[in-house]
Amino acid sequence: MKTDLWYTEKQTPYVGLTCQVTNVLLSKKTPYQELAVLETSQFGRMLVLDGMVQTTVADEFVYHEMITHVAMQTHPSPRRVLVVGGGDGGVLRELVKYASVEKAVLSEIDGEVVEASRRYLPEISSALAHPRVEIIIEDGIEHVRKHREYYDVIIVDSTEPIGAAVALFTREFYQDAQAALREGGILVAQTESPFFNQDLIRNAYCRLKSIFPLAYLYLASIPTYPSGLWSFILASKEHDPLKVQIPRCPLEKMRYYCAEIHRGAFALPLFVRELLNTSC
Amino acid sequence: MKTDLWYTEKQTPYVGLTCQVTNVLLSKKTPYQELAVLETSQFGRMLVLDGMVQTTVADEFVYHEMITHVAMQTHPSPRRVLVVGGGDGGVLRELVKYASVEKAVLSEIDGEVVEASRRYLPEISSALAHPRVEIIIEDGIEHVRKHREYYDVIIVDSTEPIGAAVALFTREFYQDAQAALREGGILVAQTESPFFNQDLIRNAYCRLKSIFPLAYLYLASIPTYPSGLWSFILASKEHDPLKVQIPRCPLEKMRYYCAEIHRGAFALPLFVRELLNTSC
Repeated sequence: MKTDLWYTEKQTPYVGLTCQVTNVLLSKKTPYQELAVLETSQFGRMLVLDGMVQTTVADEFVYHEMITHVAMQTHPSPRRVLVVGGGDGGVLRELVKYASVEKAVLSEIDGEVVEASRRYLPEISSALAHPRVEIIIEDGIEHVRKHREYYDVIIVDSTEPIGAAVALFTREFYQDAQAALREGGILVAQTESPFFNQDLIRNAYCRLKSIFPLAYLYLASIPTYPSGLWSFILASKEHDPLKVQIPRCPLEKMRYYCAEIHRGAFALPLFVRELLNTSC
Repeated sequence: MKTDLWYTEKQTPYVGLTCQVTNVLLSKKTPYQELAVLETSQFGRMLVLDGMVQTTVADEFVYHEMITHVAMQTHPSPRRVLVVGGGDGGVLRELVKYASVEKAVLSEIDGEVVEASRRYLPEISSALAHPRVEIIIEDGIEHVRKHREYYDVIIVDSTEPIGAAVALFTREFYQDAQAALREGGILVAQTESPFFNQDLIRNAYCRLKSIFPLAYLYLASIPTYPSGLWSFILASKEHDPLKVQIPRCPLEKMRYYCAEIHRGAFALPLFVRELLNTSC
C-alpha cells in the first residue's frame, strides 16, 4: 500500500489546511528558516517556509499579479523597482512585463530560496535570469536603508512577520522605504488575512498612513493562504490608485488582474472598513 | 490528557480544512443526510451536512448577507420571497430586515436541520420564529413547481449538488423557478468555488442565461468554504443589479455587504470571466 502523505499547515492554533503530497522534493534548514518544496495533488508544487505555504503553482498567479500590478499600473512610469523578499521570482516575472522598467532589483535575505525556486519552480522563477533583473542576497532592510530617492516602486513580498520578516512590518522600515522612494513613489506590502490578522493589518495601515499621503488596503482571494482572503496595503507619495485610468500598460498574460479587479479590489467588506476606521 | 479532537472536511479528494473541535453537540442521521453540529475553537459553532461545512457562527454573515442583499437591493419592492433550502434560518434573518417583505417562505426538505438550528445556532436561526416567516418542510422543487408568478425573489440556499440538492442545479428547476417568479422577479443561487467547481459554475450560468434576460455571477470570501472564494448567480427578469442605486433599503446590522461591495462583487478575476465567456 502506498504511503498516503499529507502536509498540514496550522494557519492558526485551531485551523489548518491539509494537502495530499505526492513527493517531497526538498526539505532542509537554511541559515534563516526551514525550506521545503512539496509536490501536491491539488495545487502542484508548493514552496513552504517555516511550515507556512508561500506559493503554489496553482494559485501563485493571484498573489503575484495582485501584489505587482495595482502599484505598477498606478505609477505612470516606473523605471526602478525593488522587491524585498520574493526569492521565488514571481513578482519579478510580473515586473519584466513592463517596458518602462529599466531595473528590477530583488533583495532577498535567503539565497537558498532563490536557488530552490530556480530548480523546482521554473514557472514562477523564470525571470530570475532576465537581463533587467538584479539579484542581491542581502537583508532587504539594509538595502532599503542604503538607498535615498532611488526607487519608483518598492514591493514588500515578505513572509509572515516571524523571524527575519518581523522588521519588515515596523515603522522604521516603512520610513526607510519612504525615503528610498523617488518623488511619486509607491510602496506595496502584503499584510495577511482580514479574518485572522486584524491587529497586524490595523498596525500596518496606521503606520503607513502616518508616513505616506495616501494609503489604501485592497484584497485578493488566494486559496492556499489562511482564510483564503488576503490583504495588501498600497502607500503612495502622490499617485492615487483609485483615480488612474487602467490599463496604462499592456496587460498581457494575466489571469486575475484586470481593470475591473483593480477597482473592485479596493471595495472592502464592512468589517474590514470598520477595522481601518478605528483610530490609529 | 485531553482528547485533541479535529474535524477535517475533504473539500476535494486532495485538500482539506481541519478544525479543532471542543464539543460535538449533535451527530445523527436524518432521512436525508448526516447532520452534525460541532463547537469549534476557531469558528464557533459549525453546522455540517454529509461531512461538508454549511455554516459557522464566525463567518456565516458573509454568506447570508451576500446571498440575500444583492438581489433584495436590486428588486425595487420585494414582497414575497422564497428560500429553497436554508434550514438554518440565516437568509430569513436577513430578509426580515426589509419592511417591504410581507412573507418570507422557507421550503426546506429536512425538518431536522431546522430543529437543530433552532436549538444550537440561535444567532443564525433567530428569524425562524418571526411573524412574517412561514416554514414549510417540503422539497423546494415541489414547492416551486406548485407556484406560478407568485414570488418576487427566490433564493436557492442549497448544499453542494449531492443527494437531494442535485435537482436544484438543473435546467428544469431553473425553468420552474422562472415561472414561479412574478414580473420583475429575481432568482439567486449559490454556485460553489471558481477555483474548484468550474464545470458546475459554467453549467449553471449557461442554463440561467438561456432562461432569464439577465444573469450575472458575483463573488464573496468565505473562509470555511472550499478555496475561500464563493460564487453566486443572480438571474433577473428585468432589474439589473449593476444599474441600481444602492442602498434602496436601510442597511442595518451588516458586516460584509455595502454599496461598494454590491458593485465590487461583480468585478470578476480574469480566469472567472474567461470561464463564463466560453460558449454555452
